[in-house]
Amino acid sequence: MPTLHVELFAGRSAEQKRQLVAALTEATVRVLDCAPDAVDIVLSEVSREHWATGGVLWSERQG
Amino acid sequence: MPTLHVELFAGRSAEQKRQLVAALTEATVRVLDCAPDAVDIVLSEVSREHWATGGVLWSERQG
Amino acid sequence: MPTLHVELFAGRSAEQKRQLVAALTEATVRVLDCAPDAVDIVLSEVSREHWATGGVLWSERQG
Amino acid sequence: MPTLHVELFAGRSAEQKRQLVAALTEATVRVLDCAPDAVDIVLSEVSREHWATGGVLWSERQG
Amino acid sequence: MPTLHVELFAGRSAEQKRQLVAALTEATVRVLDCAPDAVDIVLSEVSREHWATGGVLWSERQG
Amino acid sequence: MPTLHVELFAGRSAEQKRQLVAALTEATVRVLDCAPDAVDIVLSEVSREHWATGGVLWSERQG
Repeated sequence: MPTLHVELFAGRSAEQKRQLVAALTEATVRVLDCAPDAVDIVLSEVSREHWATGGVLWSERQG
Repeated sequence: MPTLHVELFAGRSAEQKRQLVAALTEATVRVLDCAPDAVDIVLSEVSREHWATGGVLWSERQG
Repeated sequence: MPTLHVELFAGRSAEQKRQLVAALTEATVRVLDCAPDAVDIVLSEVSREHWATGGVLWSERQG
Repeated sequence: MPTLHVELFAGRSAEQKRQLVAALTEATVRVLDCAPDAVDIVLSEVSREHWATGGVLWSERQG
Repeated sequence: MPTLHVELFAGRSAEQKRQLVAALTEATVRVLDCAPDAVDIVLSEVSREHWATGGVLWSERQG
Repeated sequence: MPTLHVELFAGRSAEQKRQLVAALTEATVRVLDCAPDAVDIVLSEVSREHWATGGVLWSERQG
């Protein structure tokens, strides 16, 4: 605690995920003044076939 | 915003997913009177090995 | 199953919530061809002090 | 209702998942005095590449 | 890890919540053979105005 | 997208929440190289009566 659930599009590299959890934990610890080990983060990769905005899946979007 | 998370059994066709996000967005916009682009939907497919009702996984159910 | 979790800003009327769950259920049943009683919906009201876009809480936004 | 979402590391056997949903349902029914069929459980397997504690992914941890 | 999120109707006593997290943790530890301190549980109380089955809020249901 | 859900104990000040969403968004944008407006964050305050570790609610813990 605190716990972060991060939904992001699939396709990020392992290095980006490593950097992301490090950066989010650092930001959380700095603002909330909690111990780093208290911060849990779960990443959920979402495919473009499973995310829609405005009623249209991102896999269907142009451009 | 609003954001919908939809858990459904795996196995629906791409066409059904397209129709589902369109229909849910249309319903949300109509009732809440918000802009279509304000509506985000995330679909989560759940396998029958990972959903239980009454203490029994759906993959184990008869009939 | 299916189950929908809907996050929306606090402040909608009871009548809008009634209409929203009815409309979302109707859309789900129509597209997925499932029984109405199989559809569960949980509404989560989020205050503007607890939702941020672009790093700014909606309670802080102008206009 | 009630509904449980269980996040656990990937790699458990089918038999452990069967036992887990049975045991969690039994515990819930016993304490809340509800019908077994009212209890839904969704299991979410999380890989060690997607869970971090203290800013470090579990896939990166030693020992 | 593992982490359980439990959605239940509002109105349970503090004693029931205490018993519920103890019983769910005991069940999880027994089946998964993990340390008790690895088990986190978050309870989310849902009001009957915010849960619908079959398109009808539980606050509207008869009987 | 990406979307972050942050569970934290209730009791943080409005200023800390402002700083938290700003810092988390800055970290996400820096690592993932996405537009700030693509980042949504939802804060969920959890009371100590609703979070348990090791089978014990935090409201019951000593020290």
